[in-house]
Amino acid sequence: MKKVRVTLLGCGNVGGGFVRLLEAERERIHDRFGIDPRIVAVLVRDTTKGRPALGPALVTSSALEALEVESDLVVELIGGIHTAGALIRGAIARGRHVVTANKALLATSGGDLTAAAARAGVTLGFEASVCGAIPVVRTITDGFAGDSIEEIQGILNGTSNFILSQLERGTDYASAIAKAIDAGFAEAEATLDTSGEDAEQKLRILAALAFADPVRTVARTGIEGVTVRDCVRARRAGCVLRQIATAVRVAGGVALDVRLTAVRREHPLASIVDEANGIVIRGRAAGELFLRGKGAGSGPTATAVLADVLMAVRAHRGRALAVA
Amino acid sequence: MKKVRVTLLGCGNVGGGFVRLLEAERERIHDRFGIDPRIVAVLVRDTTKGRPALGPALVTSSALEALEVESDLVVELIGGIHTAGALIRGAIARGRHVVTANKALLATSGGDLTAAAARAGVTLGFEASVCGAIPVVRTITDGFAGDSIEEIQGILNGTSNFILSQLERGTDYASAIAKAIDAGFAEAEATLDTSGEDAEQKLRILAALAFADPVRTVARTGIEGVTVRDCVRARRAGCVLRQIATAVRVAGGVALDVRLTAVRREHPLASIVDEANGIVIRGRAAGELFLRGKGAGSGPTATAVLADVLMAVRAHRGRALAVA
Repeated sequence: MKKVRVTLLGCGNVGGGFVRLLEAERERIHDRFGIDPRIVAVLVRDTTKGRPALGPALVTSSALEALEVESDLVVELIGGIHTAGALIRGAIARGRHVVTANKALLATSGGDLTAAAARAGVTLGFEASVCGAIPVVRTITDGFAGDSIEEIQGILNGTSNFILSQLERGTDYASAIAKAIDAGFAEAEATLDTSGEDAEQKLRILAALAFADPVRTVARTGIEGVTVRDCVRARRAGCVLRQIATAVRVAGGVALDVRLTAVRREHPLASIVDEANGIVIRGRAAGELFLRGKGAGSGPTATAVLADVLMAVRAHRGRALAVA
Repeated sequence: MKKVRVTLLGCGNVGGGFVRLLEAERERIHDRFGIDPRIVAVLVRDTTKGRPALGPALVTSSALEALEVESDLVVELIGGIHTAGALIRGAIARGRHVVTANKALLATSGGDLTAAAARAGVTLGFEASVCGAIPVVRTITDGFAGDSIEEIQGILNGTSNFILSQLERGTDYASAIAKAIDAGFAEAEATLDTSGEDAEQKLRILAALAFADPVRTVARTGIEGVTVRDCVRARRAGCVLRQIATAVRVAGGVALDVRLTAVRREHPLASIVDEANGIVIRGRAAGELFLRGKGAGSGPTATAVLADVLMAVRAHRGRALAVA
């Protein structure tokens, strides 16, 4: 059994889910992959918080200390750009594989980090950064490796979609936001979601994977102020209102667009309700592929993180990744 | 630029699509993967048939001759069990990667062939054997690597679904079959599709990937003799008739089931119309993932074949796969 030493940076919602998932899946992972992933260090904000699943010796609030512990792979789940970026670069410099769910960082520095990982001969996994349990990163890079992608359209932000679904049912905007906060989908400040910024970050990641060409134009409008009446009007026209993110080839590059859109009821993305996510990928030869699933939440996102961990180990099987 | 030598066994519908796709995508493949896949031999039934895209020197009707040409990877698209199986074993024995779309062979000998490929240190890709352009093999093996799959439900046979869609529109069974043949979806003998045998073969492949446990029970009923009246009755009950393939965990193993089912109109698989395919994968932590796309056809299936070729090369990068 090959032991794989994992450093976990951040142990909040997704981090906690990852720790639980790893325990739940340990036996299956042994049987199927022949490896034994072990958490060797955990960076947390508050070391006094009870974490029964983790021994107190593993937990530290010092980033430097966490990174100094010998390990094979670093899982970054602290979010934000500067600290997370520095930690990921530090991990890559130490020859460790990195798995991250950090969409903001990937959207701004994805190219640099990917290049740094390639130079160091390590894997950088970021399936969890876009649409939780929907394996859309892999579908683009691997599944569509043999085809030219012409367009990507998606509902990439579950919070906005939850709010729009509430409006569709007659709840006004303010109450819909309150419900989203209540359900744990939105922060008190939901602007990142409603403005389309979160969707744009994810769209940038997908577009960079799908298209070799540079981004030429970016347009974005939020869903703020949508009314129940707007939904009724759309319904009368055979449509539903959705926050649609689109990346499409244009002359000399790619155009990105996130906006409130009335989509026909027959459109695949009209079927995305509440906090779900959905993506349509249109390939020149493959035609249209539609994916729908859980785009957020501790368990679903943790499955994407763990898949990346296992795939990084598999890709480097036979190399000196881990101690026996 | 790394040259990758590809032997093509079979140049019918999918094989021809593969040759065309490879040409169409050549430049993108150079840029993105740094490789130059070159067809070095093609096994065909009739060498006199005009194939402008292939030089006559490449084409042979001798399987032994095709296999003797030095190459890195063999694409098997002749179908059937015995000859195809022998050729794949021969290719593996020669240390070549193999990509195949052969569901009948995989359903009966998938375990043996996978083990033989693993022993020889080569890749066996078979994404194209199930659901054409939908990357469902990869979604199960890679995307769901971190989760326990509890159930798979799918519409895995486009011909049956096309026939049921015709019945839904008031066309009788015999005319629906005739239309399917006309449209090129069905052979004159459509029993493989309508009996559920084709769907069962694909289900066996998916179940073997998703579950470590043995298959305990298999049940299968065809769609033969379904009437327009049956569809009307289902519609009145808020349902549509579909050929649903299900693999689910049961005590001590897995149960497989292919049958005509009245599914509620809200069910994801109710949205699969005409010759499309769809799959629902339910993971313990990931929840429900739904995939819908083109399950057959020369172009869509060729994208799955080419993706497997590129992934095999990527997985073995750095090893002595191909000559410079």
